[in-house]
Amino acid sequence: MIQPVKEKIILGIDPGTNIMGYGVLKVTGVRPEVLTLGVIDLRKLTDPYLKLREIYERVQRIISSYLPDELAIEAPFFGKNVQSMLKLGRAQGVAIVAALCRDVPVHEYAPLKIKMAITGNGQASKEQVADMLRRMLHLRQEDMGDFLDATDALGAAYCHYLQMGAPSLPTAYRGWKDYIAKHPEKITTIIKP
Amino acid sequence: MIQPVKEKIILGIDPGTNIMGYGVLKVTGVRPEVLTLGVIDLRKLTDPYLKLREIYERVQRIISSYLPDELAIEAPFFGKNVQSMLKLGRAQGVAIVAALCRDVPVHEYAPLKIKMAITGNGQASKEQVADMLRRMLHLRQEDMGDFLDATDALGAAYCHYLQMGAPSLPTAYRGWKDYIAKHPEKITTIIKP
Repeated sequence: MIQPVKEKIILGIDPGTNIMGYGVLKVTGVRPEVLTLGVIDLRKLTDPYLKLREIYERVQRIISSYLPDELAIEAPFFGKNVQSMLKLGRAQGVAIVAALCRDVPVHEYAPLKIKMAITGNGQASKEQVADMLRRMLHLRQEDMGDFLDATDALGAAYCHYLQMGAPSLPTAYRGWKDYIAKHPEKITTIIKP
Repeated sequence: MIQPVKEKIILGIDPGTNIMGYGVLKVTGVRPEVLTLGVIDLRKLTDPYLKLREIYERVQRIISSYLPDELAIEAPFFGKNVQSMLKLGRAQGVAIVAALCRDVPVHEYAPLKIKMAITGNGQASKEQVADMLRRMLHLRQEDMGDFLDATDALGAAYCHYLQMGAPSLPTAYRGWKDYIAKHPEKITTIIKP
């Protein structure tokens, strides 16, 4: 019997008030692949309402183009002050509702969790996260260059992919015993004591 | 020449994470009239995404029913902590974008400004604001009873009405001299020194 290969498309978004990053990940079986990566510069829009409308419309357009099954958003829960949190909350709310209106389920990941999942270090720099994503997703350096701000978004999508697929991930670490059992071709010499 | 009477419909919204209040004000010439007043209890929805979606859909439905020309929202800019401001920001962002998507312009009023405009006192209680609105808009006590949480929303709409129409308002206070000149019938005795 031929098993159909499961496909899932994850949209990652990092909604900010100045820059909105996004990345779309297609997971075929357990293999992730980047479909697109981008940054929307909201700084040119001085009116805060135009910014919110732009976020809404762009998220809707990305959903129409890539028909994601899930939205993963990078959502800081702490901030410097109440004013900036209010602004950030507005941007997040708009991005979230743009997905909900299209029946796309939403998952939130804190920045620390994303960094931890990708680099193993919750305090990793933006560059370290980008570098790790580049290796794991086989992106060229040029692909990332212009889109450093999109890596948090792609990171959220990748973090969600790890969350949902962890048990069957080929890279999942279950100890050397497990690894050797699964890869007998890797054993060249067995030294017995 | 017959001058057409100008009509304007103002939707007032007080978006919260637990209760969303709304009020629709129809202004004919300079005469305001309440078309509807209501409260949406979001506490029965435990999922925060369902709450946001409910806010979006309800605002859209109110817009479809009353076709407002403008949205006035009560928007606190300060709060107790960053967590509650993030939640409030999300609710505000969703209500705002629901209006923007229908090309309804948005105006924000801080709670202090609303209280000041309606009662003359920025520190007025909810009951004082409700009582003043009841008198000015000729509402019955019963109309307000169940909707105390809607008065902030109606207050925002009324505040916007005052902002836009102030110069031609019949109740605008321009001093006793002006009042006497306009109401000579009120003068019964003039005591000369």
